[in-house]
Amino acid sequence: MRLLVVNVNTTESMTKSIGEQAAAVASPGTEIVPLTPAFGAESVEGNYESHLAAIAVMETVRAHSGDFDAVIQAGYGEHGREGLQELLDVPVVDITEAAASTAQYLGRSYSVVTTLDRAVPLIEDRLALAGLSARCASVRAAGMAVLDLERDPEAAVEAIVDEAVKAVTVDRAEVICLGCGGMSGLTERVVARTGVPVVDGVTAAVAVAESLVRLGLRTSKVRTYATPRAKHFRAWPPVLATP
Amino acid sequence: MRLLVVNVNTTESMTKSIGEQAAAVASPGTEIVPLTPAFGAESVEGNYESHLAAIAVMETVRAHSGDFDAVIQAGYGEHGREGLQELLDVPVVDITEAAASTAQYLGRSYSVVTTLDRAVPLIEDRLALAGLSARCASVRAAGMAVLDLERDPEAAVEAIVDEAVKAVTVDRAEVICLGCGGMSGLTERVVARTGVPVVDGVTAAVAVAESLVRLGLRTSKVRTYATPRAKHFRAWPPVLATP
Amino acid sequence: MRLLVVNVNTTESMTKSIGEQAAAVASPGTEIVPLTPAFGAESVEGNYESHLAAIAVMETVRAHSGDFDAVIQAGYGEHGREGLQELLDVPVVDITEAAASTAQYLGRSYSVVTTLDRAVPLIEDRLALAGLSARCASVRAAGMAVLDLERDPEAAVEAIVDEAVKAVTVDRAEVICLGCGGMSGLTERVVARTGVPVVDGVTAAVAVAESLVRLGLRTSKVRTYATPRAKHFRAWPPVLATP
Amino acid sequence: MRLLVVNVNTTESMTKSIGEQAAAVASPGTEIVPLTPAFGAESVEGNYESHLAAIAVMETVRAHSGDFDAVIQAGYGEHGREGLQELLDVPVVDITEAAASTAQYLGRSYSVVTTLDRAVPLIEDRLALAGLSARCASVRAAGMAVLDLERDPEAAVEAIVDEAVKAVTVDRAEVICLGCGGMSGLTERVVARTGVPVVDGVTAAVAVAESLVRLGLRTSKVRTYATPRAKHFRAWPPVLATP
Amino acid sequence: MRLLVVNVNTTESMTKSIGEQAAAVASPGTEIVPLTPAFGAESVEGNYESHLAAIAVMETVRAHSGDFDAVIQAGYGEHGREGLQELLDVPVVDITEAAASTAQYLGRSYSVVTTLDRAVPLIEDRLALAGLSARCASVRAAGMAVLDLERDPEAAVEAIVDEAVKAVTVDRAEVICLGCGGMSGLTERVVARTGVPVVDGVTAAVAVAESLVRLGLRTSKVRTYATPRAKHFRAWPPVLATP
Amino acid sequence: MRLLVVNVNTTESMTKSIGEQAAAVASPGTEIVPLTPAFGAESVEGNYESHLAAIAVMETVRAHSGDFDAVIQAGYGEHGREGLQELLDVPVVDITEAAASTAQYLGRSYSVVTTLDRAVPLIEDRLALAGLSARCASVRAAGMAVLDLERDPEAAVEAIVDEAVKAVTVDRAEVICLGCGGMSGLTERVVARTGVPVVDGVTAAVAVAESLVRLGLRTSKVRTYATPRAKHFRAWPPVLATP
Repeated sequence: MRLLVVNVNTTESMTKSIGEQAAAVASPGTEIVPLTPAFGAESVEGNYESHLAAIAVMETVRAHSGDFDAVIQAGYGEHGREGLQELLDVPVVDITEAAASTAQYLGRSYSVVTTLDRAVPLIEDRLALAGLSARCASVRAAGMAVLDLERDPEAAVEAIVDEAVKAVTVDRAEVICLGCGGMSGLTERVVARTGVPVVDGVTAAVAVAESLVRLGLRTSKVRTYATPRAKHFRAWPPVLATP
Repeated sequence: MRLLVVNVNTTESMTKSIGEQAAAVASPGTEIVPLTPAFGAESVEGNYESHLAAIAVMETVRAHSGDFDAVIQAGYGEHGREGLQELLDVPVVDITEAAASTAQYLGRSYSVVTTLDRAVPLIEDRLALAGLSARCASVRAAGMAVLDLERDPEAAVEAIVDEAVKAVTVDRAEVICLGCGGMSGLTERVVARTGVPVVDGVTAAVAVAESLVRLGLRTSKVRTYATPRAKHFRAWPPVLATP
Repeated sequence: MRLLVVNVNTTESMTKSIGEQAAAVASPGTEIVPLTPAFGAESVEGNYESHLAAIAVMETVRAHSGDFDAVIQAGYGEHGREGLQELLDVPVVDITEAAASTAQYLGRSYSVVTTLDRAVPLIEDRLALAGLSARCASVRAAGMAVLDLERDPEAAVEAIVDEAVKAVTVDRAEVICLGCGGMSGLTERVVARTGVPVVDGVTAAVAVAESLVRLGLRTSKVRTYATPRAKHFRAWPPVLATP
Repeated sequence: MRLLVVNVNTTESMTKSIGEQAAAVASPGTEIVPLTPAFGAESVEGNYESHLAAIAVMETVRAHSGDFDAVIQAGYGEHGREGLQELLDVPVVDITEAAASTAQYLGRSYSVVTTLDRAVPLIEDRLALAGLSARCASVRAAGMAVLDLERDPEAAVEAIVDEAVKAVTVDRAEVICLGCGGMSGLTERVVARTGVPVVDGVTAAVAVAESLVRLGLRTSKVRTYATPRAKHFRAWPPVLATP
Repeated sequence: MRLLVVNVNTTESMTKSIGEQAAAVASPGTEIVPLTPAFGAESVEGNYESHLAAIAVMETVRAHSGDFDAVIQAGYGEHGREGLQELLDVPVVDITEAAASTAQYLGRSYSVVTTLDRAVPLIEDRLALAGLSARCASVRAAGMAVLDLERDPEAAVEAIVDEAVKAVTVDRAEVICLGCGGMSGLTERVVARTGVPVVDGVTAAVAVAESLVRLGLRTSKVRTYATPRAKHFRAWPPVLATP
Repeated sequence: MRLLVVNVNTTESMTKSIGEQAAAVASPGTEIVPLTPAFGAESVEGNYESHLAAIAVMETVRAHSGDFDAVIQAGYGEHGREGLQELLDVPVVDITEAAASTAQYLGRSYSVVTTLDRAVPLIEDRLALAGLSARCASVRAAGMAVLDLERDPEAAVEAIVDEAVKAVTVDRAEVICLGCGGMSGLTERVVARTGVPVVDGVTAAVAVAESLVRLGLRTSKVRTYATPRAKHFRAWPPVLATP
């Protein structure tokens, strides 16, 4: 089977890294196709950029020429999964939801730990709309700016691990979902310091997508995710400036 | 004061009609500026089109050259209000939320009545994220397709009035919010058949926006709606094909 | 238009102060009529006094001879708004609810900060019954006795500002509603220390009441707020001792 | 022990009937003291009358000269229990809450069935504030006016029994709480038609009050129900006209 | 009347102590019959042991030869009450629920304080399923191991009292339910340190059970607690090894 | 990998059928080991039997001699998953939860349709405890007795399909979870009549269990599912009568 794994920002190195994570857990016979949106922000850190990413991911998938069996939207707490489900019959898996739904099998409650404080409301809203809030103990951020992350990645990792420890000891989380990618050694350190299972969104999403495809399940088309009607769009899709 | 009233679809006649509704209730000294997005769908009937509208409304407001005191997003149950709030300091008012929050002053519970069945989940999600679900008795749709509306508008009005009656008698709503615009005589007929107050989103939003401006209140910038960081955007805003 | 603004306690100086606050934000053409109940407590600080205020406010409005277009109940977290709505067709606006519903337009969550610890449950219950709890981050009190307030008003202001800071930093509120009136400089200090918008109940209620009147909306009479039946009352209204 | 059982309306025959119900289940050694408020409505059918009853019940208990061990507020869905708890150290039991809390021991969910449609919101609010809503399947009313009740009591009984049947079959209630008193044979008929246990508020409240007294438990005075401060009341208590 | 009070563990001394607590508050004419399960764990400290206790309590009651009027399941936060209700027509009272439902009459919110951290989720789940969570401020544990309890009972009492104080001051509980038995002087110390009423599960359950029996109420048999069908059981009840 | 699939009743033919369903979707290299409890009821239809099944499933797994990588509890709405998680480090998957969590990826809301009315509360409770209720539109039963099922299986299938249709049209479910196994052609008929995806619990659970094992995830042991302490058990495990 072939899974499209779509990054939400336009940074190619991030797409590559997400693709490698996905490929590392894919079953034999599963092809991972990482995609970068043709437009949008270099990183997604709030509602404006996330709304833009939503439509960029949709256009990227619409523009993709080959066949595929499922799509993974690889952004934490972003908008747009519902739109993709309208456009496609094959399963669509958001990594925020895949992490949470996987975590619920491992402990009575889970926390999400991320970097930026302003991502917290977006993640909370995504979990609420997906019906995955009831066992969410907390969404915690290390409270740092992106520039801090770049300037001192080691301090960033330390700050995230500290929040994970608070999630377990103060909020009583029994599982941690990591809502930030690509930091070396992060998972290992969280496991070492907290003693609880850590779930990564991208790899959880690959397992969920493969499961849905194997079971022959597809998105319900009776109401919310019914295929859009053919209609006139003004000036869309845009003539995009070359990257 | 000057209020931007932004349509979510690209149909100019709809923008004109919304602008007239808004102007009819605006206080002396309030200027209503109706805007049509430069791109998007001729009508918004689901998630894909609504996600597109979200970003189209934001770009329309960003591209607007003059000063303004508040923005009204004039679509029922659409995405994007949170993004606009990030981009602006002045108040942003969504008509779905303005109708609901106004209705709550008039009765113990309210229902929203709309045309299309697939709009129901979008409206429910908008109310839930806005914290306005607790006194929402129901969101009901007449269950008709857009083509039906066009073919037989009188039947459409009748179907909507019937749902409003059920909202009051079956769901025990005490106020009706009309989640569909521009049908002649609709409000009067709902009032006549149900005996309950009927709230229109556009006019409610004008009153809310004027109130916020008069009280000198602006969007909080501490966390969720903090201004986006300056950053690189690939191929955005797009070079748009001429309409 | 004419708005009755009814104090919940019998202290005339408080009524005067509330009336001035209201008049300061009223539109040209809006007349503010401040009223003091003919009976009740000099200050309302709990359920017994609040229940008494509920009926005192109703009798005060019933006894008022002139015409009016809306009524504002100017007490934070008090009982009785539902009863007033039964007695009147014109809109009734509670300041606790007006502040909360206004705050919801400005940030993702709001907190109420008040003086007395025992007011907290009353405010929480009012917000819950009004369907305004979902985005309430917290109701916090400075935890002081009324006598402390009188003895050392400066310390009171400081204690309230401290709670507002905790609401923003600990409870993640993005807007503050002030549930206590008439302290000089309080709003300015909370804005200065927290950086978030501050909403005052009385002024928010004036804006809401004006909006409802302008939109021609009145209380729904189909069920909860239907006019009371004519019936026999024993010994009521009371022959009141002269003040 | 001595229990005050306070009617919420001023109809003496109703007080007598409530007192007899209470006495019928009281343990040996328990004295039932039925009381009628000195002022208020002859029947309580909505918020205005219920707010008046709240304060009337409180004044009646305050004016009572003898000792007592607990107080029962014998009105269904009325305001005021919280105020009584402030004024007293001994337990206060509301019959709406006693019925619901008793019903929860007998089945997975319960419904309340009452006469007047406008009582439904009052009962729902009382249960919500008391934390007793989670297992409430529905609050149903026969939807009749008081005059209908008086004109044709047999039809009234029939209509109530019909609602109880719907509560069990449609709403899946497993226990019925009767929110209306004094109709001959009502309990027996509901049991016969539904096959589920029926709980009466007054008798349940007697059992709860006796239990609390026997266990030596009293109202918590740390916050919500702390004794009111001594303060000046204007024109209260009123010089009441003789009944 | 005769009440079976069934311990959930197999420690006879604990059964004896529970029986004495129950007898101390039982009305004249009420006979308390303490029972110890024929199989199971010497103490119940988690789900496995609690599931085993559930079925052990049911078998113990089924094996009991005499008549009885109600059953009390005397374990805090254990499984199985629903099964007992299926097997019996007479009332079944769980002590966790009896304590919570009693506490709700005494204050606006209550906390449960227990010894072992791992009991917290079990107690929370029991309260949630019983519809008693809305006014639960917190379930707190002293966080100690059973061995600690045995080694230093005085330190255990102190730790529990400390948690009760935090429940009142931090979580704003107004009543404490003690979810652990048999420690000398515990109730008195909690009352002394917190100033709030303390409810014990066993004694509250006796009062509730007596009340239900006196009111002639029995478990509803229409759906959830309908009597099990006669059917074949393999190897059950077991041939038990002699104790 | 090796997955234990444990039936909750003692009917071997049912175990065989469950095993075949599981094997049909298992990946190459996954071995399905179907197990039948050594004691318990021939079918599980309520709380008593379900509590017995809970402990029987646990003892069956404890008695299993070989290695295994995950356990599936193959009963719809049964007790006991939490206990199994304490006893094991490897993942435990309940089929009720697996079906619901899978359904949530396919549509905005799902319904469970089952045979027996008395299973509904058990399924609702399981979903609530698992945090999977928010998007559950309804749990519906065909309302038939087991004997009816046996007497007229064709009528049973028809009744279930009818409830599925009502779930989609009345309750607005977009996905159906079938809470009853082994009826020939049931899935196909529900798909044909409703047009929505249908999720089967056993096959969904196999996919979930395989995913968890592949991702290297295990049950969190920090609190709720910590391994039970070594302790004395009286008369347990029982000397079972031979089957």
